[in-house]
Amino acid sequence: MEELVNRILKDGTVEDGAILKVGTFINHSMDIRLFNAMGREFKKRFQEDKITKIVTIEASGIGIAAIAAQYFDYVPVVFAKKFVGSNMSSEVYESEVYSYTKATRYKVRIEKNLISSDDKILIIDDFLANGCAALGLIDIIRQSGASVVGFGAVIEKGFQQGRRVIEEQGVKVESLAVIKGFEGDKVIF
Amino acid sequence: MEELVNRILKDGTVEDGAILKVGTFINHSMDIRLFNAMGREFKKRFQEDKITKIVTIEASGIGIAAIAAQYFDYVPVVFAKKFVGSNMSSEVYESEVYSYTKATRYKVRIEKNLISSDDKILIIDDFLANGCAALGLIDIIRQSGASVVGFGAVIEKGFQQGRRVIEEQGVKVESLAVIKGFEGDKVIF
Repeated sequence: MEELVNRILKDGTVEDGAILKVGTFINHSMDIRLFNAMGREFKKRFQEDKITKIVTIEASGIGIAAIAAQYFDYVPVVFAKKFVGSNMSSEVYESEVYSYTKATRYKVRIEKNLISSDDKILIIDDFLANGCAALGLIDIIRQSGASVVGFGAVIEKGFQQGRRVIEEQGVKVESLAVIKGFEGDKVIF
Repeated sequence: MEELVNRILKDGTVEDGAILKVGTFINHSMDIRLFNAMGREFKKRFQEDKITKIVTIEASGIGIAAIAAQYFDYVPVVFAKKFVGSNMSSEVYESEVYSYTKATRYKVRIEKNLISSDDKILIIDDFLANGCAALGLIDIIRQSGASVVGFGAVIEKGFQQGRRVIEEQGVKVESLAVIKGFEGDKVIF
């Protein structure tokens, strides 16, 4: 998606030759016009898939998924929770995820009444890197009997294993911008 | 906002006579059509205020704020972070918040480059109860020199102190549904 690639080149920054920061327009401050363009593009890529629900994970995926849902006939958006509040039911599907960036394990959870076996689900997230969070989401969705018809990432680190591990699950992957790598503080597409 | 009140009466549930759960349409699964109606209503209530940016807090406020921004000429939405990731700058405004529901303190943070002294900011969140999170957000926004022109809540617990403490800060409060209290498992408006 050319508009997104150009925006990353213009406003993304690379730290330590390895960490891409897109906080000024994607995952801290959100450019809602750009999110709408991304939503339209996700719809194009998954228009044949009769999506009934979008699932994402707190926190960075939520804004993208909410805007995108408008292009999928306003299907409900369910966000998996990493942190349990007092208002969460004990009837949940859960799965454990390893976070490379934080070097810890955490659980992702969705209340059981929010997805059902006849759902056809599109997962949307901001980044696809090693695919660990995606595998956790696929796991909890499948516990409900629903089918995962696709995974849509805004930015894919094409040099990591994420795409392969998701495709091995039989899930179609679409990314709006695929990064080949970094050269110093430059992003290479 | 009648549509919202009716939806809470229909799909909200009350636990232990004190906790309102709206996870099936607001803060776990999100009804994006309803969010659009809420966004239009926020715009009506703050249309004179020349908002340049919307600020919210992860995670439940993000979807609501993202959709609402579409009715405020697509202003950027900045979400304050409660959890620090590897991709967060050290140049942040921060403030400490006491959480009654979790009986702990946590910090809310926004990177300094995302708000500036000429911003006129609307804060949006899902719930207004004791106002602690709101005070933390007002504090970090004011550290930047920006002005907080309003606080918009989807659901206000009118029997708690939140509205008073925010208004004492000179900030206008608008809530789309104000709860008077609970009678057993019934919500009273």
